[in-house]
Amino acid sequence: MKERVFAEIENNNYKNVKATLKEMFVQDIADLLEEIEDPAILLKVFKLLTKDVGAEVFSYVNPDCQEALINVLTDKELVYIVEELSIDDAVDLVDEMPANIVERILKISTKDTRSEINKLLKYEDDSAGSIMTTEFLAIKENLTAEQAINKIRKIGDNVETINVIYVTDKSKILKGVLSIRDILLAEPDELIGDIMSDNIIFATTNTDQETIAQDFKQYDIISMPIVDNEKRMVGIVTIDDIVRVIEDENTEDISKMAAVTPNDKPYLKTSVWKLFLQRVPWIMLLMISSSITSLIITKNESILNASAFGIILTACIPMIMGTGGNTGGQVSVTIIRGIALDEIRFKDIFKVIWKEIRVAVILGLSVSIVCFAKLLYLDGIINEPNGILVASVICLAMFVTICIAKVVGCILPLLAKKLHLDPAVMASPFITTIIDAVSLIILCNLSLQLLPA
Amino acid sequence: MKERVFAEIENNNYKNVKATLKEMFVQDIADLLEEIEDPAILLKVFKLLTKDVGAEVFSYVNPDCQEALINVLTDKELVYIVEELSIDDAVDLVDEMPANIVERILKISTKDTRSEINKLLKYEDDSAGSIMTTEFLAIKENLTAEQAINKIRKIGDNVETINVIYVTDKSKILKGVLSIRDILLAEPDELIGDIMSDNIIFATTNTDQETIAQDFKQYDIISMPIVDNEKRMVGIVTIDDIVRVIEDENTEDISKMAAVTPNDKPYLKTSVWKLFLQRVPWIMLLMISSSITSLIITKNESILNASAFGIILTACIPMIMGTGGNTGGQVSVTIIRGIALDEIRFKDIFKVIWKEIRVAVILGLSVSIVCFAKLLYLDGIINEPNGILVASVICLAMFVTICIAKVVGCILPLLAKKLHLDPAVMASPFITTIIDAVSLIILCNLSLQLLPA
Repeated sequence: MKERVFAEIENNNYKNVKATLKEMFVQDIADLLEEIEDPAILLKVFKLLTKDVGAEVFSYVNPDCQEALINVLTDKELVYIVEELSIDDAVDLVDEMPANIVERILKISTKDTRSEINKLLKYEDDSAGSIMTTEFLAIKENLTAEQAINKIRKIGDNVETINVIYVTDKSKILKGVLSIRDILLAEPDELIGDIMSDNIIFATTNTDQETIAQDFKQYDIISMPIVDNEKRMVGIVTIDDIVRVIEDENTEDISKMAAVTPNDKPYLKTSVWKLFLQRVPWIMLLMISSSITSLIITKNESILNASAFGIILTACIPMIMGTGGNTGGQVSVTIIRGIALDEIRFKDIFKVIWKEIRVAVILGLSVSIVCFAKLLYLDGIINEPNGILVASVICLAMFVTICIAKVVGCILPLLAKKLHLDPAVMASPFITTIIDAVSLIILCNLSLQLLPA
Repeated sequence: MKERVFAEIENNNYKNVKATLKEMFVQDIADLLEEIEDPAILLKVFKLLTKDVGAEVFSYVNPDCQEALINVLTDKELVYIVEELSIDDAVDLVDEMPANIVERILKISTKDTRSEINKLLKYEDDSAGSIMTTEFLAIKENLTAEQAINKIRKIGDNVETINVIYVTDKSKILKGVLSIRDILLAEPDELIGDIMSDNIIFATTNTDQETIAQDFKQYDIISMPIVDNEKRMVGIVTIDDIVRVIEDENTEDISKMAAVTPNDKPYLKTSVWKLFLQRVPWIMLLMISSSITSLIITKNESILNASAFGIILTACIPMIMGTGGNTGGQVSVTIIRGIALDEIRFKDIFKVIWKEIRVAVILGLSVSIVCFAKLLYLDGIINEPNGILVASVICLAMFVTICIAKVVGCILPLLAKKLHLDPAVMASPFITTIIDAVSLIILCNLSLQLLPA
């Protein structure tokens, strides 16, 4: 459909554009608007939408497009949109816009909206307060089911969801929770206090969003009440926000695993300079730590340079290092993910180590055997003097490296967790740097011991 | 609370256990049951729960614990649980249990349940059909809002959710969708056909679960109707299933990025042999491909072995390879994630390459400068003959390697996507193996050209 709209815009046939837009979902219209670069056309297309659809579409377009729209809208048009936005979207908007636009938004919005926005803006990033909305449905426990339904009919239009209903007392203290189904299925004269459950999963405004996401997953809920320090209910977080939190947290973990500083923005919106800053510290750190490897090679110069099989050993360094790094990376990433999903805890450390030792032995043996054959026949070492002995030493080094890599790879993330560091940092690049040095020491020492001078 | 329950079990004080269980959420009781190893105690604790709570808890415990419970429950107890389970949970159960238990479950369950289970079992893994439930709420469009509410009151207890209501005609063809809020807020005599929206986001039974998850995220929905090939409605997928799908897909991507074959089971439940099989093919593949690196080193023996600065060059190989691998890994993982989140598409390839070239130049320059200083002063090359020249050659090789790594790292995942391969496979380990060979060729060639023989 998007292509059709663009073709019609090209032909200046806005009547058809309008007809097509009517058939589209607001989220798809938002995607379409984001791709229009000319502000004049953007405004023209936006104005084809009804006021309500326009306001909804506005909440879905990205900040760049929101800014472009705000710049071409009149105050009257803008105020309608801002008042229609749900409070958490309005807060996101104010959070993302440059100062002059924020000033304009706050100036034109009603006093109530302004004070709600200001209240929510105070919460820390990634806290429950920063992702919650204050538009929730709370009723008193002395209502009957019938009275509750009448109340919902009256105010249900202005809240984020009516699927879950909260019960508060006159000081706004959270007392209970029930679903719209509970109310509909109850007898009309049953009291809310008797239907509701007082076993409530809730969080405070400063709870970290990741913790809240864990609770949503653990308890299969679609909405969670957020309370202040006096247990007064101040907002709700809904499942659609949590889906976004889960994806953000996953992106963050994946970035850290690849030694990239995480970043909220989509890749294509991130500046070259920002990308550089996200990556450079880790590359520098890892490069400097490779000095250790260089040092080990220099120290073992005699082994690697002098003897007849020196060049064979040197040629094998990348293979052993690479295999060690890859096996270590496999286990560390598996463990990091297990920790993130709460499937593996620190108390499991011995179970994990024991499991990895067994995997390491089988894996080490099979890789070493294949490597032995590869060295002799593919790389042709069998024709060199002492060929079989050299190949054996290399494969033994490979085996030991794999075993150590597996154990280091599973211990480091668990230790990080224990020390309240982020386990994701202990992924491949970090493990690789350690294994590089370890594998070299093993190879050089084994050669020194087992090969003729 | 869990600890308290275990202490009371230890003291054989089941009256207190029962009291504590009453205060707990079913999901937490499930976690607790999973940790009980003695089947006799497991049964004793399970029997403390009321029948309904027991059935609910049963749906949350893991397959091992379900199996243990089934083995100690009587047919009468089991049939109650199976009939209480929602159909998608019953299907999962039958999917996970060994053959003899499946036989028993199907034998004792009612004919209806058995035929529902058999119907759902036929759908392919990871398809909409395999994750949907058939217990949904569908009404006819000629009902009034009031009649609809009465209908919901009657059947609302047996469906997965009443938050979203579907409208079907007499052949069960999907006609519209509306929320419980739409019905409650409508006038009692308004017709459902007039309130409902006929612009529906739906999927067919064979749609891949990942596609469905994308739609949930794009359209902010909490439930999606699933239709067969004749557009007859056969089930719904709800947001709690989708949260699980999103986490599974993320785990799958992360596994592939670390060169591990993905697996559905939690780490601690995966056997040593299975872990070995998930990892060994990739390690073998990557090890064998490192033959190329060995070959390059052997071919350049004269450069790396003969001259005075041979050992310095050799000592730098791991650093250059490592830095190349890390920078390539950074960009490939960033791009892979961007593709997974649908933020980057193949048509953006030139934008991406241009961005990465600029990042590469800045990153390459800064890393090379720091590396130059490190080589001269930290590694002490300044005291060697031709020290500054050698360091310059190494840093130049570093710069070229970083530039190539960045470009390779961004092109490969996008190409994979274009060729309908999984971009996640093009992550660090794969990129590293390519960059290893490339960086060596660069280093050896530059040395040959620029250094005195």
